Amino acid sequence: MLIVQKYGGTSVADPDRIRAVAEHIVRSRHNGDDVVVVVSAMGKTTDDLVRLANDVSQSPALRELDMLLTAGERISIALLCMAIIDHGEPAVSFTGSQAGIVTDTTHGKAKIIEVKGDRIREAIAGGSVAVVAGFQGVSTTRDITTLGRGGSDTTAVALAAALHADACEIYTDVAGVYTADPRIEPAARRLARVSYEEMLEAAASGGKVLALRSVEFARRYRVPVHVRSSFTWEPGTWVREEEPMMEQAIISTVTHDVSEAKVTIEQVPDRPGIAAKLFRSLAEEAVNVDMIVQNVSAGGHTDISFTVPKDDLPRTLKVMETIVAETEASGFRHDTGIGRVSLIGAGMKSNPGVAAQMFEVLANEGVNIEMISTSSIRISCVVQADDVERAVRALHKAFALEEAS
Amino acid sequence: MLIVQKYGGTSVADPDRIRAVAEHIVRSRHNGDDVVVVVSAMGKTTDDLVRLANDVSQSPALRELDMLLTAGERISIALLCMAIIDHGEPAVSFTGSQAGIVTDTTHGKAKIIEVKGDRIREAIAGGSVAVVAGFQGVSTTRDITTLGRGGSDTTAVALAAALHADACEIYTDVAGVYTADPRIEPAARRLARVSYEEMLEAAASGGKVLALRSVEFARRYRVPVHVRSSFTWEPGTWVREEEPMMEQAIISTVTHDVSEAKVTIEQVPDRPGIAAKLFRSLAEEAVNVDMIVQNVSAGGHTDISFTVPKDDLPRTLKVMETIVAETEASGFRHDTGIGRVSLIGAGMKSNPGVAAQMFEVLANEGVNIEMISTSSIRISCVVQADDVERAVRALHKAFALEEAS
Repeated sequence: MLIVQKYGGTSVADPDRIRAVAEHIVRSRHNGDDVVVVVSAMGKTTDDLVRLANDVSQSPALRELDMLLTAGERISIALLCMAIIDHGEPAVSFTGSQAGIVTDTTHGKAKIIEVKGDRIREAIAGGSVAVVAGFQGVSTTRDITTLGRGGSDTTAVALAAALHADACEIYTDVAGVYTADPRIEPAARRLARVSYEEMLEAAASGGKVLALRSVEFARRYRVPVHVRSSFTWEPGTWVREEEPMMEQAIISTVTHDVSEAKVTIEQVPDRPGIAAKLFRSLAEEAVNVDMIVQNVSAGGHTDISFTVPKDDLPRTLKVMETIVAETEASGFRHDTGIGRVSLIGAGMKSNPGVAAQMFEVLANEGVNIEMISTSSIRISCVVQADDVERAVRALHKAFALEEAS
Repeated sequence: MLIVQKYGGTSVADPDRIRAVAEHIVRSRHNGDDVVVVVSAMGKTTDDLVRLANDVSQSPALRELDMLLTAGERISIALLCMAIIDHGEPAVSFTGSQAGIVTDTTHGKAKIIEVKGDRIREAIAGGSVAVVAGFQGVSTTRDITTLGRGGSDTTAVALAAALHADACEIYTDVAGVYTADPRIEPAARRLARVSYEEMLEAAASGGKVLALRSVEFARRYRVPVHVRSSFTWEPGTWVREEEPMMEQAIISTVTHDVSEAKVTIEQVPDRPGIAAKLFRSLAEEAVNVDMIVQNVSAGGHTDISFTVPKDDLPRTLKVMETIVAETEASGFRHDTGIGRVSLIGAGMKSNPGVAAQMFEVLANEGVNIEMISTSSIRISCVVQADDVERAVRALHKAFALEEAS
């Protein structure tokens, strides 16, 4: 079998951890598997480099920031190879560029265009472990790029797809995907498997285990992903194609997210094109709009509410001022004290009562619902941030998620 | 004019120093010069990375050590570009590989085979400052290599040669080449110029201003080198072709070196091939033999003395044991308490009395000479380490080096 293994920053945070990871890789080789490793920068290295850039420059040039940050994974791939070689297993490190990770030219959040992987294939054919720098690539104009947040997960899944690997193992500091955040709900249970679609919805609604982009990539190329812990080395959660099961659980997981703010524009004239104008203006300011709800109201006017990351709020409010002036809306308000609670499960597709049950559970807890949005396998409610933890626990219990499925 | 400027690790040790260097580069641009910058890793970064490698592995793989160490200059080129761009001057960073520094495959001390420099030429033609990572290159097999000690100086001189630069400025923490080490001889004077040949002899006999390899490179390609301080920014010492002068000083500089040990093999049978056998064995153990002196003695036997870096002494002594057994020598001894004092000056070629005067000066100071070696522009004496500083001061005075030439 050909396995791509990805290790995050906490997994290689110091020399001891690097040696432990090397031992695990060598065990995989001794099991007869070919192994390609993708590794992030050690611990807080990337943060340290960003701080250094900000010490030198008030607005670091993006091309140079990418040149700088890619030093982080360069250090970890070299050290990890040294540790593997110490066990008598040949290992060869490759930068993103050497691995043939070709991206567009958007510094700081480049998109992968192509994965060549010729040198990786050569290394594997020659019996070596190939260790590849995550998070980085080389652009079509031969400049060094980084893939942005969650980039190493994306590198791993993209490599697994290009190499037709049998599995992509994502080693991290949690042991898999849980039915809820175990820090909030102690009865939370690790899921043995979730579908790509469920994982996508979980990543998009506050689940932090896998970066959204990497799940999209895995789903598109049907890469079986195994999320597991580099501290216990126990089997974790498989993310793969949904398989029809006799008794499928309705709900897989409860997720939550308190990183967003709610913005409402009030009493907008209910004419075509107003919403388009608003969200185009936000898009032009690179504001990442998430949930959008338009409330019906009387008298030819409507309220539109949406959520944005708190980091994007200042830019959002600037856009709102212009829009209110141009659209005869009566005003706008925002709330940073909100949170989102979501139920995710492929099983809800054929169980129409799930939304109603969710609203009842929250009502019984005295949790007020401010916004609702749904997909075929997810229901999200925006509530006050103070109510989030209580809502997570109540839903986890009401849908019996602590019981093995 | 096209100028290559090289900044060492102390010149870019922290964000403040990096900004100061950027300002100087911008001033050079405003003077109308095209500027290519070569920069070393910040401060002690390389040492820190070596320590990290030794924490992870008992014998770090050399290919991976090169991958690791090259992270150092990657950080400094990116930061320096950010600082230059902050002044409104376009700047683009290039790794050794991107700059087209092609080397052989000897990891840790690769030799430059070719300097392509296409992307550097493009950057300059486009009005940008090109900032190149020193010390590193890419091998003919596309692996990352480092050039070893003094590598950044060599990168700078090689680039200057390839680009037909008008000058190569080496910015460092000393203000140029002195008639003696100013910490030992306070009357030491900065030389306005020295010849390539004098600089070669100085570098080979303990002068630490420029790495020997970079001087060899400069001499071969006739690159005018200007050694100067990045702290005072004052003009320093030009290293260039010797120009006949009416009244040339006989001696340019006194150098010293206490980093070596002396080894003597005693009563070797005076037969052909014995010395060859000894020094071939040492070469096979990668021992860097420096001075060699064979003393004539009576009875068909001879003593051979030589100096080696103290770091190489353990390997040397192991070789000596074998050699003594195989050659019927009576034994060997070594002395780590020695030092070397050298007089260097192109003027001594036509002044036959220099050696005699040097020996007299040392005799008058009561300094015992243990070994002598000479070239056409250098005389070196091995003395006891305790006598080195006194010898330097006495020679500096006797040859009137404190007087402006």
